[in-house]
Amino acid sequence: MDEQRQKRLALIVFSGDLDKLFAAFTLATGAAASGMEVVMFFTFWGLRALRKKVRTGTTVFGRLVGWMYGGDIERAGPSRFGFGGLGRWMFKKMMKAKRVPSLLELRRTALELGVKFYGCSTSMGVMEIPREAMIDEVSACVGVAFFLEQARGAEITLFI
Amino acid sequence: MDEQRQKRLALIVFSGDLDKLFAAFTLATGAAASGMEVVMFFTFWGLRALRKKVRTGTTVFGRLVGWMYGGDIERAGPSRFGFGGLGRWMFKKMMKAKRVPSLLELRRTALELGVKFYGCSTSMGVMEIPREAMIDEVSACVGVAFFLEQARGAEITLFI
Amino acid sequence: MDEQRQKRLALIVFSGDLDKLFAAFTLATGAAASGMEVVMFFTFWGLRALRKKVRTGTTVFGRLVGWMYGGDIERAGPSRFGFGGLGRWMFKKMMKAKRVPSLLELRRTALELGVKFYGCSTSMGVMEIPREAMIDEVSACVGVAFFLEQARGAEITLFI
Repeated sequence: MDEQRQKRLALIVFSGDLDKLFAAFTLATGAAASGMEVVMFFTFWGLRALRKKVRTGTTVFGRLVGWMYGGDIERAGPSRFGFGGLGRWMFKKMMKAKRVPSLLELRRTALELGVKFYGCSTSMGVMEIPREAMIDEVSACVGVAFFLEQARGAEITLFI
Repeated sequence: MDEQRQKRLALIVFSGDLDKLFAAFTLATGAAASGMEVVMFFTFWGLRALRKKVRTGTTVFGRLVGWMYGGDIERAGPSRFGFGGLGRWMFKKMMKAKRVPSLLELRRTALELGVKFYGCSTSMGVMEIPREAMIDEVSACVGVAFFLEQARGAEITLFI
Repeated sequence: MDEQRQKRLALIVFSGDLDKLFAAFTLATGAAASGMEVVMFFTFWGLRALRKKVRTGTTVFGRLVGWMYGGDIERAGPSRFGFGGLGRWMFKKMMKAKRVPSLLELRRTALELGVKFYGCSTSMGVMEIPREAMIDEVSACVGVAFFLEQARGAEITLFI
């Protein structure tokens, strides 16, 4: 395993921000298009990229997080200049004007190119996001050991 | 050095946020538990993870930073929804409810598994955090050249 | 390409924050000084590090972004404790007091040591930053495929 590095890109997607998710999916689709194997591990705020537009949370805190950070990938706003949703609207407009694909389109392309999506089971537990609240295309909900095994055989590994 | 990649995980921990530190220590303990050598380099805000609960700073600015960003690893709050300390309290509650170990426990486990902690000497200087303000278990305070040497021999290197 | 890893450090600089840029340029100059080849890809907010002090933007949104996030590398503020510019002033003072080089000096040193700078063409388009608004020393404005090719042959790749 050590010497034989696969043509693989492994991404840990920790952020749920529009701009960082855009960077992550651009790298993922670009790598997949060039023939690399791509695995994406979504954890914490990054789980938003895999979510359906459903409510989550069973405890008071979980429901509060679900309410504050709810919604699916289209709800992602930029890491700067949020302005209570205005920044998200503006950046989406700017991206569209330059004919840059949206996050939803990038995610679809990634799936078509064979990119694998994994959810981090620990952060799903902490944030009270069940498997049912996530899109069907998620390959599996896994722990850190699974990710490390994948990353160890990768040419490039990034934490985004 | 180039061809012979060690079974090593090298982490630069730049962030001092509860959620990012949690990700860093989860990766570190997971890797160490699976037999990898793990080195963690703490820089800037990440230095909080190595600090004792003591005051720091000698100049006016240094004391101000020490006051605004003081405290040890238990003072770390989430990167989102801080709410003046409320978010920290809430996330800790949620993590405890799911029986997820605290940062303090994760750090202890990391040490027990042989993970090595290094402080970045340049950012310690800028932020006026002396060696005495850090926990005894820090292996050394080092510069960027030391880190690069370690990272070059690693299988996985991440900036968190 | 797979087996023969070059002595190369590849950095994606996504952040435009003073502290993160400082980390990026410290790693870059340190690696270059030790004989490594270093390539830096600036994208999104990180493009600030390559900008001249000129106005940008042609559409309303582009001008707004140019106004909110304008200025060159010296305008970069810390990721925490911005305080409307006060934090930037304070951190610069602290860095100077410890005789730590400024971002401008670090960037110059990087160039002298042969570090290559690349701008991300997609984010330049979205943020309406033309090539003319960037310093002459930028080697080229490239897409994700170019970066991945460089990163695949690198010993260390980081997303900052």
